[in-house]
Amino acid sequence: MRVYNFSAGPACLPEAVLKKAQEELVIYGNSGMSVMEMSHRSADFEEIIHRAERDLRTLMNISDDYSVLFLQGGASLQFAMVPLNLMTRHRRAYYVNTGMWSKKAIAEAKKVGEVIVPASSEDRTFSYIPELNADMFKGGADYVHITPNNTIYGTRYTKLPDTGGLPIVADMSSCILSEVINVNDYGLIYAGAQKNIGPAGLTVVIIRKDLIGRAPANIPTMLDYKTHADNGSLYNTPPTYAIYIAGLVFEHLLKNGGVPAMQKLNEQKAKLLYDYLDSSSLFKGTAEKKDRSLMNVPFVTGSEELDKKFIARCKEEGIVNIKGHRSVGGMRASIYNAMPIEGVKKLIEVMKDFEKNA
Amino acid sequence: MRVYNFSAGPACLPEAVLKKAQEELVIYGNSGMSVMEMSHRSADFEEIIHRAERDLRTLMNISDDYSVLFLQGGASLQFAMVPLNLMTRHRRAYYVNTGMWSKKAIAEAKKVGEVIVPASSEDRTFSYIPELNADMFKGGADYVHITPNNTIYGTRYTKLPDTGGLPIVADMSSCILSEVINVNDYGLIYAGAQKNIGPAGLTVVIIRKDLIGRAPANIPTMLDYKTHADNGSLYNTPPTYAIYIAGLVFEHLLKNGGVPAMQKLNEQKAKLLYDYLDSSSLFKGTAEKKDRSLMNVPFVTGSEELDKKFIARCKEEGIVNIKGHRSVGGMRASIYNAMPIEGVKKLIEVMKDFEKNA
Repeated sequence: MRVYNFSAGPACLPEAVLKKAQEELVIYGNSGMSVMEMSHRSADFEEIIHRAERDLRTLMNISDDYSVLFLQGGASLQFAMVPLNLMTRHRRAYYVNTGMWSKKAIAEAKKVGEVIVPASSEDRTFSYIPELNADMFKGGADYVHITPNNTIYGTRYTKLPDTGGLPIVADMSSCILSEVINVNDYGLIYAGAQKNIGPAGLTVVIIRKDLIGRAPANIPTMLDYKTHADNGSLYNTPPTYAIYIAGLVFEHLLKNGGVPAMQKLNEQKAKLLYDYLDSSSLFKGTAEKKDRSLMNVPFVTGSEELDKKFIARCKEEGIVNIKGHRSVGGMRASIYNAMPIEGVKKLIEVMKDFEKNA
Repeated sequence: MRVYNFSAGPACLPEAVLKKAQEELVIYGNSGMSVMEMSHRSADFEEIIHRAERDLRTLMNISDDYSVLFLQGGASLQFAMVPLNLMTRHRRAYYVNTGMWSKKAIAEAKKVGEVIVPASSEDRTFSYIPELNADMFKGGADYVHITPNNTIYGTRYTKLPDTGGLPIVADMSSCILSEVINVNDYGLIYAGAQKNIGPAGLTVVIIRKDLIGRAPANIPTMLDYKTHADNGSLYNTPPTYAIYIAGLVFEHLLKNGGVPAMQKLNEQKAKLLYDYLDSSSLFKGTAEKKDRSLMNVPFVTGSEELDKKFIARCKEEGIVNIKGHRSVGGMRASIYNAMPIEGVKKLIEVMKDFEKNA
């Protein structure tokens, strides 16, 4: 029996996608082989990667002004690639600090140039998104880096900062495809696949074309966005099977109403859970209400012992990976696109029952 | 129906592995979820990655003096990581040039330090392995880089050079696990998974522990071997599903006699094909006999038109991806571990029939 998997990532995938992948795992279509066995230069695989890109462009309404890249290394490698490629004119960039992943991005950028942190929410365990205003971004800089959704702390930006024209670089690992955005508001979007896109080992980068080709000549070839943009993500062997699964997810999303439908469902799921948290006398959400994430919902009982008991109870009920990150404690329900509303309802049911008997 | 897939990579995988992966794709064991959905910090996945490492250590007889790393980015990223991590004392390294992949490795290393090419086989389209002797490696240097098997040109080293104690760094992408080697002869071995290990998107690095920790402080965290060695390849989210499939391949190899049995089978398969090539009046192998690869067998008819006809004929017979690399032309049969001897026999049968009627 399948469980309700509230993991922060790698995370649950649509069951329909897994079943389709299972069906064609040994032989894909008329190819006589598994997708895992296909040359990345074969017509069959080229169709898979082109369709995946086309569907992602449709889903996010990505214009021809942007390149879509399928890379490896996760957001962690993007923390280095972004400054190595973009922090090359002013040698300075703004990084808003809203959590552990922002901090890791900052640490890598500092190896390349000057990092200015105009605002941080570290003073209250990153439980909110700091106010940002145009005055904060006045000096010359190459870009402004933000983390629109903070997986660990359950916060999200509800509006974009006015950067006075500086390109916004956004780590959307835990929120891509979860709500409608305007890609044109960004210079570069990156996301590890393992939350809303597909299996781990694939990173999606959406980059405005004028930002490609700014890297210094001595950058490792594999770290230069231009290498991958010029070769349609086929400079070297890409993570072919992960791209195939991502393509199935994109197809599944398109069939089910695209990002607007996902957003509606995600808002419903989040509202159910937050409404219950706000009414509960036992469980409390840890993020500030105004900045609550639609994807990651951390909450606590206030007692480590009760937290433990609750997590054990969840497991008995087929609810897994609900333990919170060590820096926040308690519980965290990651309710990405593929988490069905039934999973959220089941969780709330167990919470209510636990509260009654606590 | 499954075809005989002679692709140079991604390449055929053992059918038994694919079938097992298919069986447990939607639900793995008692986990209630797909391996693709598992947190990389979960007990289930930790068991998968630890078993994969343990089995690889058994297969290759890797001692505790070496770390085994599961990384991303393919050999192409290793071309940069190797010099960034290791070319740090003498800032100089030797690179033997035996083909296109050696050249790419050289180009990346030149961005980091001084590259000395003591020998090259470029004068005759890389159709042989140049003679190497200890005098070639006399100056101070950090390592000697070689490409033991050359996928495009079908050559392989039959003995290791005497480097006078300099660590040997070897790109074994297309020969790892195909024949018995002594890991202790190497400082660092790297291999993209997509030939003898598993799906694309996984890179295996086997590094002698004293070579870890030599990178400069400003190296991107993700490019430092120490990052991954210190964290058991779990610094960030690794390519979890690719590691799982690699683990299934390792298990399959162990069950079937390990690397010695593979070597025997690979020698049989290669001998069948080379013996036929040497007897044929139509088809000719392009690599020098003394340096012939066990994994990649390039051959030509001498007529582009006949080559084309032959490739088309193969396709009709369920033999695919037999077209040679553009730099050699003609055909190339990649006969990695997972290519059954029946596939090689079938190919020879078709070659014989084609020759008779040509």
